[in-house]
Amino acid sequence: MADRDTNTAEALFRAFRDGFRWDGVAHMPYKEDGSAPFKAISRQVLFEDPSQGCQLRYFEMDADGYSTLERHEHVHAVMILRGRGHCLLGDEVREVKQFDLVTIPAWTLHQFRATRGEPMGFLCMVNAERDKPQLPADAEVQALRRDPKVAAFLDGKAG
Amino acid sequence: MADRDTNTAEALFRAFRDGFRWDGVAHMPYKEDGSAPFKAISRQVLFEDPSQGCQLRYFEMDADGYSTLERHEHVHAVMILRGRGHCLLGDEVREVKQFDLVTIPAWTLHQFRATRGEPMGFLCMVNAERDKPQLPADAEVQALRRDPKVAAFLDGKAG
Repeated sequence: MADRDTNTAEALFRAFRDGFRWDGVAHMPYKEDGSAPFKAISRQVLFEDPSQGCQLRYFEMDADGYSTLERHEHVHAVMILRGRGHCLLGDEVREVKQFDLVTIPAWTLHQFRATRGEPMGFLCMVNAERDKPQLPADAEVQALRRDPKVAAFLDGKAG
Repeated sequence: MADRDTNTAEALFRAFRDGFRWDGVAHMPYKEDGSAPFKAISRQVLFEDPSQGCQLRYFEMDADGYSTLERHEHVHAVMILRGRGHCLLGDEVREVKQFDLVTIPAWTLHQFRATRGEPMGFLCMVNAERDKPQLPADAEVQALRRDPKVAAFLDGKAG
């Protein structure tokens, strides 16, 4: 093995632990304030090697938690890793479960929700260099709500 | 949703199926010949969006199967997704199990083996543009074998 710190066996082999944590990976809960557009979600960056064009992150929501409803130019390649819940993608609501794959295309509104009374976690592969997410305008969300299935999703009542 | 074929809901939501297969993902067994430096391994490319700098693939070995012992400049970011087994990385042999993380640095010999009487599968994130793998010289393998733990691994008898 090379002798750089990042190439020690301890840095190269990182064990999975109970509760979906990994050795040597920082667990970063998102700090909520009154206007937080997300709920009960945390991030762990699993891989961010500067020689790679992408990073691999693990996001997890507690039961009833949700990610931010947002869009951006960069694509997200998602695999559900833990539990089940629902995903809104454009105007489509789908139930998703462990190991299902979701592609978030450019500029497509998306949100994940842990709707099944259990935590839901997912891997997200993303370009290392990427644009910032944008939030939808209120009018756009109201238009989306005309679909009862989308409204139920946004109200945390996805069937 | 956009109306390109690649942006249909069917293309964006791909369900996980029994036996670690996914809807819309081709299962590609590697064809072995007499001199094959791998055994009983298959590949499924889960994500290969041209806008992303990396691809995410899933490799699986049957019980007693193994990947090619090789090295290359590009880095592999690996998560074990199914089962358990062993990994050789440089001169280090480690047991690995579901959801463990392994970083394969540049130019480091590596091999995965399904040593536990069950299939072992792993995700591998890799740059879309990358160099070809190189096989070690016989003399290098013989030198590695001086370590009994490495020799046992290469003989399919990792403890």
